[in-house]
Amino acid sequence: MRQFLIVGHDAPTTPEFSLDDIAGGAGRLDVLCRCVTSAFFLSHSIRESVRVHAVLGDEFTVRFDGRTLRRLNPDERSTAALLRTALEHRADAIGHVPAESSPGVTIRRMGFAATLEDLATDATVVALHEDGDPAVAVDPPSDPLFVLSDHRDFTDRESSLLAAAADERLRLGPEVLHADHAVTVAHNYLDTDGYTAY
Amino acid sequence: MRQFLIVGHDAPTTPEFSLDDIAGGAGRLDVLCRCVTSAFFLSHSIRESVRVHAVLGDEFTVRFDGRTLRRLNPDERSTAALLRTALEHRADAIGHVPAESSPGVTIRRMGFAATLEDLATDATVVALHEDGDPAVAVDPPSDPLFVLSDHRDFTDRESSLLAAAADERLRLGPEVLHADHAVTVAHNYLDTDGYTAY
Repeated sequence: MRQFLIVGHDAPTTPEFSLDDIAGGAGRLDVLCRCVTSAFFLSHSIRESVRVHAVLGDEFTVRFDGRTLRRLNPDERSTAALLRTALEHRADAIGHVPAESSPGVTIRRMGFAATLEDLATDATVVALHEDGDPAVAVDPPSDPLFVLSDHRDFTDRESSLLAAAADERLRLGPEVLHADHAVTVAHNYLDTDGYTAY
Repeated sequence: MRQFLIVGHDAPTTPEFSLDDIAGGAGRLDVLCRCVTSAFFLSHSIRESVRVHAVLGDEFTVRFDGRTLRRLNPDERSTAALLRTALEHRADAIGHVPAESSPGVTIRRMGFAATLEDLATDATVVALHEDGDPAVAVDPPSDPLFVLSDHRDFTDRESSLLAAAADERLRLGPEVLHADHAVTVAHNYLDTDGYTAY
């Protein structure tokens, strides 16, 4: 399984935001939306063996699970609507117990630290870093969890937690990319392992 | 220079569409918008040596030129607004003479065939195809022009024109991707040429 943990620093934690202003009033929710669609969409299907964990304001984490996911469309606005629906169910997320808001989408009352700790037990935690090893020179890890930040850098605390949890530190290329583009390149990196066979 | 020619088959040819419905009423303009932003954005800057040519309904082509481009934001809605502004200037595009609608954005009264013919003279035309050579096994072409389609396949006529113009036929990976994701992977393919140096 491939997993992506995306930290939305300014993302809303309540559903009172307009779908007409997701790049402004909704705290750059557009970045998270593109990360979700980049993680799942192939040309004619979705990648089933993928999970995305979107941390909203360090208070909630919304999980998208490719095995059961429905109603996902490639555009930002409809994905923002799925996140808003998840936030409408936030009162049902008690402790760390998830609440399902639509097929394949659940919300948990967990911030970055708790989500990372929970996921790290079953995954190879991959930090993307300018000083990391070039991905093309490293065999793709099994069951990777790529940890990414939105339009902001990780906070010092988040960076420390990630450094402690990371199994690998990779660089996807010489350019520093937006998070959603990094998701796309990460998939291609994993897809083309053993490329001579395709 | 890297160039991307994207064919928007159902894209509007007049500015009478709502920014609230770009994935529906505006003929999947969301796909073209994501192609534009994928082509230009790096984390903290835009790629200046890039041009995107968005064919709208085989009637107009809107060109984004990275050297002079301003007011581009990463979200779909604001990019759709730039395309709508370009269409508001369509009456000024007479013959093949471009009309500038905002800094770095021009509209031309040219469909796919004329645009491809015009661009092919100075570029290495790259067709992405399932039966193409794996990109990772091919040295990146100089001055590539990647020709892509939106959510629809190329028409038979477009496929014939592209086959006749193509200098290379590549495959970016074993999976068939959305056009905007292909743009991102194409950039990474070009970025990582000689990857051991980065």
